Amino acid sequence: MKNAAGALLSSIKLDRQSRKSISVQLYMALRDTILSGGLKAGDRLPATRTLAKEIGVSRTTVIDAIERLTADGMLVSRVGSGTYVSDTLDRQRPTARITRSSDETINHAPALSGTLRHAQKSYAKRKWLPHTTKPFVTAMPALDAFPMATWTRIYARHLRGNRNDVMGYGQPQGHEGLRSAIATHLNAVRGITCDPAQVFITSGAQHAFSLIGQMLLNAGDRVWMENPGASGARNALLSAGAELVPIAVDRSGLVVKDGLAKAPDFQLAFITPSHQQPLGYVMSLERRFELLEAVEQARALIIEDDYDGEFYFGNAPQPALRSIDSQGQVIYVGTFSKSLFPSLRLGFILAPERMVSAFNELFESWVGGPPTATQAVVADFMDEGHFATHIRMMRRLYKARYDALIRAATRLPDTVQIQETSGGFHTWARLDSRFDVDSLVKQARSRGVVLAPLGRYCLAPMEENGFVIGFGSASPDEIERGMEILGSLVADGALAA
Amino acid sequence: MKNAAGALLSSIKLDRQSRKSISVQLYMALRDTILSGGLKAGDRLPATRTLAKEIGVSRTTVIDAIERLTADGMLVSRVGSGTYVSDTLDRQRPTARITRSSDETINHAPALSGTLRHAQKSYAKRKWLPHTTKPFVTAMPALDAFPMATWTRIYARHLRGNRNDVMGYGQPQGHEGLRSAIATHLNAVRGITCDPAQVFITSGAQHAFSLIGQMLLNAGDRVWMENPGASGARNALLSAGAELVPIAVDRSGLVVKDGLAKAPDFQLAFITPSHQQPLGYVMSLERRFELLEAVEQARALIIEDDYDGEFYFGNAPQPALRSIDSQGQVIYVGTFSKSLFPSLRLGFILAPERMVSAFNELFESWVGGPPTATQAVVADFMDEGHFATHIRMMRRLYKARYDALIRAATRLPDTVQIQETSGGFHTWARLDSRFDVDSLVKQARSRGVVLAPLGRYCLAPMEENGFVIGFGSASPDEIERGMEILGSLVADGALAA
Repeated sequence: MKNAAGALLSSIKLDRQSRKSISVQLYMALRDTILSGGLKAGDRLPATRTLAKEIGVSRTTVIDAIERLTADGMLVSRVGSGTYVSDTLDRQRPTARITRSSDETINHAPALSGTLRHAQKSYAKRKWLPHTTKPFVTAMPALDAFPMATWTRIYARHLRGNRNDVMGYGQPQGHEGLRSAIATHLNAVRGITCDPAQVFITSGAQHAFSLIGQMLLNAGDRVWMENPGASGARNALLSAGAELVPIAVDRSGLVVKDGLAKAPDFQLAFITPSHQQPLGYVMSLERRFELLEAVEQARALIIEDDYDGEFYFGNAPQPALRSIDSQGQVIYVGTFSKSLFPSLRLGFILAPERMVSAFNELFESWVGGPPTATQAVVADFMDEGHFATHIRMMRRLYKARYDALIRAATRLPDTVQIQETSGGFHTWARLDSRFDVDSLVKQARSRGVVLAPLGRYCLAPMEENGFVIGFGSASPDEIERGMEILGSLVADGALAA
Repeated sequence: MKNAAGALLSSIKLDRQSRKSISVQLYMALRDTILSGGLKAGDRLPATRTLAKEIGVSRTTVIDAIERLTADGMLVSRVGSGTYVSDTLDRQRPTARITRSSDETINHAPALSGTLRHAQKSYAKRKWLPHTTKPFVTAMPALDAFPMATWTRIYARHLRGNRNDVMGYGQPQGHEGLRSAIATHLNAVRGITCDPAQVFITSGAQHAFSLIGQMLLNAGDRVWMENPGASGARNALLSAGAELVPIAVDRSGLVVKDGLAKAPDFQLAFITPSHQQPLGYVMSLERRFELLEAVEQARALIIEDDYDGEFYFGNAPQPALRSIDSQGQVIYVGTFSKSLFPSLRLGFILAPERMVSAFNELFESWVGGPPTATQAVVADFMDEGHFATHIRMMRRLYKARYDALIRAATRLPDTVQIQETSGGFHTWARLDSRFDVDSLVKQARSRGVVLAPLGRYCLAPMEENGFVIGFGSASPDEIERGMEILGSLVADGALAA
């Protein structure tokens, strides 16, 4: 083996720390060598024994990789002669036999739609961070407390089911069992009475907001948006053509009077009444009725985003807007990102009765839902009671983590004040106006503490200075350590703006 | 147990044929009774022994159901006293304490957006049918030939992985490993060279068409659409505001001249060059260049829908439009619905280099991708070579099923002519113009044979009379039996219009 093939193969780099097995890495490396033309049709591979020695792996590993390449047609064995690169690739892979020559080269990107060009100007920046369970990451549930063994068992059982059900096309409106389970859950936990036919399954709440916006909004339609408010919903509604009007939020929730003053002709209001995103306030019953009244007058609609309403740990909870809405004005949106986990990308729309046929037509015509496996497994998880039990345990766990947060907060300097909340797993902290929150966020991050500046949620500037803190994914000990770091940073005068 | 509770409980109906266990059914029935107020807080449950006897199940089953209800907080046990309905529900479930009275009731549905109202008029009707492996269902791969054991093993391994990776938020653009695996696959099977950063993962091809349309189209933009053509793509593009222009298709593919005559000012062309949907023709190389030239002149773009390009079984395949496009005019869309299975709801966009930053911004701002599990499992399935092997085996299997179809077709009357194709798993049949295709479809269906009338794919009327037949999911024997039934129906004069 003194030819080009030998040289190439011996240059293969394997990473023994990788999650992928050495045999898979070798398969991928050999495949890439063939695909890039480093080994050509008809080239003979060195003997497995030689290869194993040159690459420094066991012969079994080499044989395994070669068998994979043979199975997928890249290599071919000839008895008594050895293993060769097959000509399958050359025969079956189409190649561009002619390339066009053109007078000019187009380099600029094509124009985006007018709606998106307009929307872009107001997008919230949503930097994706590799999520960890550091304090005080927001929107992250307690991953460590999830009953993964039960989940895996249900998954495996699902995959063993009837192949037509498991692998075929699902119902566009969503898996029937899941729609029923959600209707039952809404009744048990949120006091909402509805029919499964009103439930439409989406690829997360974000997808739901996009669909609702696309369905109802004309470019320039005015939409009330809580300020500060949910950044994902903001971007989705903007992309559907909404002209967002930032409305103030106080301890009783959305300030309806502010909305009426700024945009009495609104078409839609986006709202998080159970646990304001990001301030954590619960909308008062009076305000709820005030909002319903305003919406009725304007012949508008409401999106009620109930992203963590299951985790209320205060005294008597307020009824969902949806359950006091007698006029079919509320489109309720739920998600499993908080109640199960974010990577599921699973949410739902609960449509008012009078909108069910429109939703049915749209889903049947052009909306593909989430994978059947995701839906069927969640349905079984709910039907068998694991979901209700999990919610109940998590409500207690988040309450305990909240208590740890409040306890640790008593030792903070007066210049930072953690605000109370009564559910979910985030709240906000008011920071003395002399402090520069961005600089605090940066310094905290370098010490392993994640804070989200309030500004990230703002469509219009706010008077308050502060940041949002999550307490869902960190243990009470981690919360306490995080608060100590926060306290020492705030006590350090260097932060004053 | 002579009280209301006893009467209610004894009326519980259990279905021993159900996929759900008796214990789960009992849990669900008891929970529904409590939720609906049939059992109230403080009501005492009969002894497990009594319950088991009244309902006719084992005591273990009853205990299991009661334990689930206790775990999720619906029941509470008092030592030495029994099991009671807890007051948790009353305490934690919000109820509407006031209901609003309103002068009038709104019954009409709110107005849809102008774009959707316009789109609705041209939607293709897409009736969802519970998919089976009957002949000649279209768009359904050979579910029985899928290596489910390997798939399940990879799934279980994924779920055992690091919880932050498995459960946390995924990258909006898609799972990195999957984007790389797709880039390698496109090189190996389709001769397309690209960077993983150009690959954006979507919830199926349908979702990709919606996103591309929403991103690029203004209401009223003219879009070339193959006639007949893909009905899902048609509805997605219409919903994004497209004014679709039906363009003729012949044996060489889209008739570019027809497009230039009807809409020289087009913004976008939707096309299935590898295997025309639904006619099964392969676009000639000459036509491909003609189309690229026309698109360049008009400063337009192309969506290349390569939904089953992996399964070409003819002689030298044509290169993908994407691989002969030197100007970044082609947005290539792929799907795993045919190469793996439909319920995955997984597809991808391969963006031209000059559009990558726009796609990045949009995905980061408001597109949530498919579940991480789906993406990670497919990535491993590809990296370990199972995908390449599966594609290779399926190409052979579909060829064998196609051969069976053509063999059986020789015995059909002259009034129905199966058209040749060289890939994928569907083709079409020309029906003598004196026959009423809808009546044939109906009669065939009553005998277990599924046919799709050509009209279902038509945006504008076609001269041809015929139907589409799939040969992917039925065995050669089933195909032969199906053709016999088809032959006898066509031979029967009753069908003549």
